[in-house]
Amino acid sequence: MKKLINDPLNVANELIEGLVEAYNGECKYVGKRSIVKNDIPDNKVALLVGGGSGHEPIYHGLVGRNLADGAACGDIFAAPPPNIVFEATEAVDKGNGVLYLYGNYAGDVLNFDLGAELSDDEDIEVKTVLIADDVCSAPPTEKGKRRGVAGLVPIVKLVGAASQTATSLDELATFAEKACLQTRSVGVSMAPGAIPATGKPTFNIDEDKIGLGMGIHGEPGVGEIPMQTADELTPMMLNLIVEDFEKDEDVDALKEGDEILLFVNSLGATTMMELLIALRKAKMYFNEKGIKIFDVMVGPLVTCQEMAGISFSVTRMDDELKKNWEMPCQSVCFSKMEGRYGG
Amino acid sequence: MKKLINDPLNVANELIEGLVEAYNGECKYVGKRSIVKNDIPDNKVALLVGGGSGHEPIYHGLVGRNLADGAACGDIFAAPPPNIVFEATEAVDKGNGVLYLYGNYAGDVLNFDLGAELSDDEDIEVKTVLIADDVCSAPPTEKGKRRGVAGLVPIVKLVGAASQTATSLDELATFAEKACLQTRSVGVSMAPGAIPATGKPTFNIDEDKIGLGMGIHGEPGVGEIPMQTADELTPMMLNLIVEDFEKDEDVDALKEGDEILLFVNSLGATTMMELLIALRKAKMYFNEKGIKIFDVMVGPLVTCQEMAGISFSVTRMDDELKKNWEMPCQSVCFSKMEGRYGG
Repeated sequence: MKKLINDPLNVANELIEGLVEAYNGECKYVGKRSIVKNDIPDNKVALLVGGGSGHEPIYHGLVGRNLADGAACGDIFAAPPPNIVFEATEAVDKGNGVLYLYGNYAGDVLNFDLGAELSDDEDIEVKTVLIADDVCSAPPTEKGKRRGVAGLVPIVKLVGAASQTATSLDELATFAEKACLQTRSVGVSMAPGAIPATGKPTFNIDEDKIGLGMGIHGEPGVGEIPMQTADELTPMMLNLIVEDFEKDEDVDALKEGDEILLFVNSLGATTMMELLIALRKAKMYFNEKGIKIFDVMVGPLVTCQEMAGISFSVTRMDDELKKNWEMPCQSVCFSKMEGRYGG
Repeated sequence: MKKLINDPLNVANELIEGLVEAYNGECKYVGKRSIVKNDIPDNKVALLVGGGSGHEPIYHGLVGRNLADGAACGDIFAAPPPNIVFEATEAVDKGNGVLYLYGNYAGDVLNFDLGAELSDDEDIEVKTVLIADDVCSAPPTEKGKRRGVAGLVPIVKLVGAASQTATSLDELATFAEKACLQTRSVGVSMAPGAIPATGKPTFNIDEDKIGLGMGIHGEPGVGEIPMQTADELTPMMLNLIVEDFEKDEDVDALKEGDEILLFVNSLGATTMMELLIALRKAKMYFNEKGIKIFDVMVGPLVTCQEMAGISFSVTRMDDELKKNWEMPCQSVCFSKMEGRYGG
């Protein structure tokens, strides 16, 4: 795999430096490896995201207008250490507290929690909401064990919008918990990406197989299934999401008349062509169930280098979520005008 | 290569069907294979784009709010035939003419020209502006022979904005010619994509080589060069753009104080991480020359399946181009809020 990089051991720092340049003066590089907006208003309830690098445009690409205020960035596929989390926290804090919103991985939880302790020592109030949308990584009764995958993009978009008007950290955390509860994802992988420092594949999978429910680093999922067509695979994946809403006692089942935000993501090398073909079938699937697509997101937003694979994320919308979805936003990861398609 | 498709010979139709669903009611499928906005105002000067499929999110993903009104879509890597061009033209025309704006490829020119003749028979006025931004595909004295590559995204964004207020087809065409003249691109390729119908690679290149100036289908460029670091390759590529502005008698040389829009594109599998590392170096390069970055675009927008490679596009901005850049836009390919980063 030919990677267009410089020092293989310095890619995380260099890519964050490049990310700051992508924001062209709107964001700054902070401390060891954080990116933070320049113009966070006084008393704003701040929103901090973060996680390992190598999955661009997430997580740090979600810093932006009406999105996250900052990101604490780890090395490639590694959690940001506590000092980086603290530096980012201190930089985004405007006196009204900081919400940590990130994917549920053991390393991230450990390091963000230590960062929260360091922040508490400086009298910065922190709350944490974990994104754990991957329904294949644990049953509904053990949702706390689930990984955070592509659902984090619509969740951060929604919470970023809500953070513009939230009057307290508690209010924003409650909203974030609702957005997380209503967002569920299923992914498949078809081929690994390459680890930038070594060129080695991130995992192995047979040429005629798909990893159903596999995580974005190749974590085990439901198991391997034979390679199949888009029209076969799409309903199989969406069934897992619909069944999860049904089985989970904490939410209502998805039913006729419900409105959802649908996100079709590429893990990297899977092309937009394939995403669109899968989206075509997904629309038929939800049409048959009488579930209305409120809006659509599609693209390679949650990736793992050149990994091939696709995921679906579904967020059930209510009036509050819709209002926050309709706010425009802009970032390297995801941008939109006011409103929604077809609205 | 495992492709998530159905019938390998029907991918173009299915992906356009999926694209229409991505717009969630804002666009419709027209005729044999076009996508057209539903709400084109009466008397609007219409903007039609198009070209072969397989390069998503271009070209048809550039249909959208303050962007193109429609796209005539070819089969995979093939120009749209004249009847498709005509069907799209008829659907976007609102009585004030239609601007065709597409990449300069022989097959596209032939078919769009025949489509324009069919449209003329129905008294629809058409003008054509060809996008030919690839400086490696012909010398400045033969600009008419150049291919259209990634520069088409900023060009369509700018012309789409201008089309919202243009009072005549001539006025819009003149603006489009300026946007094209001020936009230049250089690309490199590191690995081929796969042809969806056969799984075969689109071209071959040695494991330790880069194709400098290679087209998005693997067309020959300047030649093969050894694989190198991001910091070595970036200035080499940008020098070709700067030299081209210098050599071309139709434009001023890029000089200190000029403001540019910089677009760093992935041809598909090259990751956002690599784009950002290259962007970091590009910013240093222009800083040293005293050339100001007005705004930045970065992402995999002009692709050829899983092709690995990167391109830089530079648009020199003036007040009129800036005003049109600052208009918000939304599409599957590219979206932004009003204004610009750092503005």
